[in-house]
Amino acid sequence: MNPDQHATRSANVDDAHAIGHLLHDFNTEFGEPSPGAEVLEARLRMLLGGGRTLALVSGTPPIAVALVTLRPNVWYAGQVALLDELYVVPERRGQGIGSALITHLLSTALALSVDLIEINVDEGDVDAQRFYQRHGFTAVAPDSPERAFYYWQDITF
Amino acid sequence: MNPDQHATRSANVDDAHAIGHLLHDFNTEFGEPSPGAEVLEARLRMLLGGGRTLALVSGTPPIAVALVTLRPNVWYAGQVALLDELYVVPERRGQGIGSALITHLLSTALALSVDLIEINVDEGDVDAQRFYQRHGFTAVAPDSPERAFYYWQDITF
Repeated sequence: MNPDQHATRSANVDDAHAIGHLLHDFNTEFGEPSPGAEVLEARLRMLLGGGRTLALVSGTPPIAVALVTLRPNVWYAGQVALLDELYVVPERRGQGIGSALITHLLSTALALSVDLIEINVDEGDVDAQRFYQRHGFTAVAPDSPERAFYYWQDITF
Repeated sequence: MNPDQHATRSANVDDAHAIGHLLHDFNTEFGEPSPGAEVLEARLRMLLGGGRTLALVSGTPPIAVALVTLRPNVWYAGQVALLDELYVVPERRGQGIGSALITHLLSTALALSVDLIEINVDEGDVDAQRFYQRHGFTAVAPDSPERAFYYWQDITF
């Protein structure tokens, strides 16, 4: 195997087709709704050129993706980055590809003046919680043992 | 008391001074770090004119604030709104001001083509969890009893 084959890199709009398929496969695998790979591709073509969404991928064509959105926050001089999705195709798991993407995300975030990186992790997904803790994330507030739950409300009609 | 005195409204950059003080008082009350009201005011003057941060306030001068940031998301055609902060000055709590701000937020979000509203709520803050549930929020994923924890990593140096 060519060691460069799985090199992580920043995605651009030319990767929208492949990333749309990866994200659709992600939600299909975990039984979550998806608008379909074509709709996702069309949105990604807009988003990846817009400066508020970035994707890191592994390989060409990509076999893994980290999708990140940026936003401002009054408590920080820089930006806040939320890791919306991290997906590795099933047959390539356990090979350090997710870790490589997170490591790449941390260096990319520093270069983009990001001050805070966030991710929501399922309460029962202890493996994912350990994975993010290994990469420097924590669920507890500063000076407190308390975690926070993610609450949401869909207002589409 | 004039019933209009606590009317909720969208804030503009002229409210940056008052909101900066409210947010500083918020973090001071709960023992969280704050860069100071003046730094917050300067950031709010930038953010409130930028279209990615909105604030709803109650009263003139404001005695309560809901601070919201907007971002794109590949799973939605519209935007995602995160309620970063909701603060009511101590002497005005229990008067429905927080509920009025959330109600105003929901109508404002619809007008802005927001599809999803999010907030992170402390694990032990059952009162806040009940408050958001009364206003239509949930912590569980669709078709699942599972909640998600908020993980974060500060990368400022």
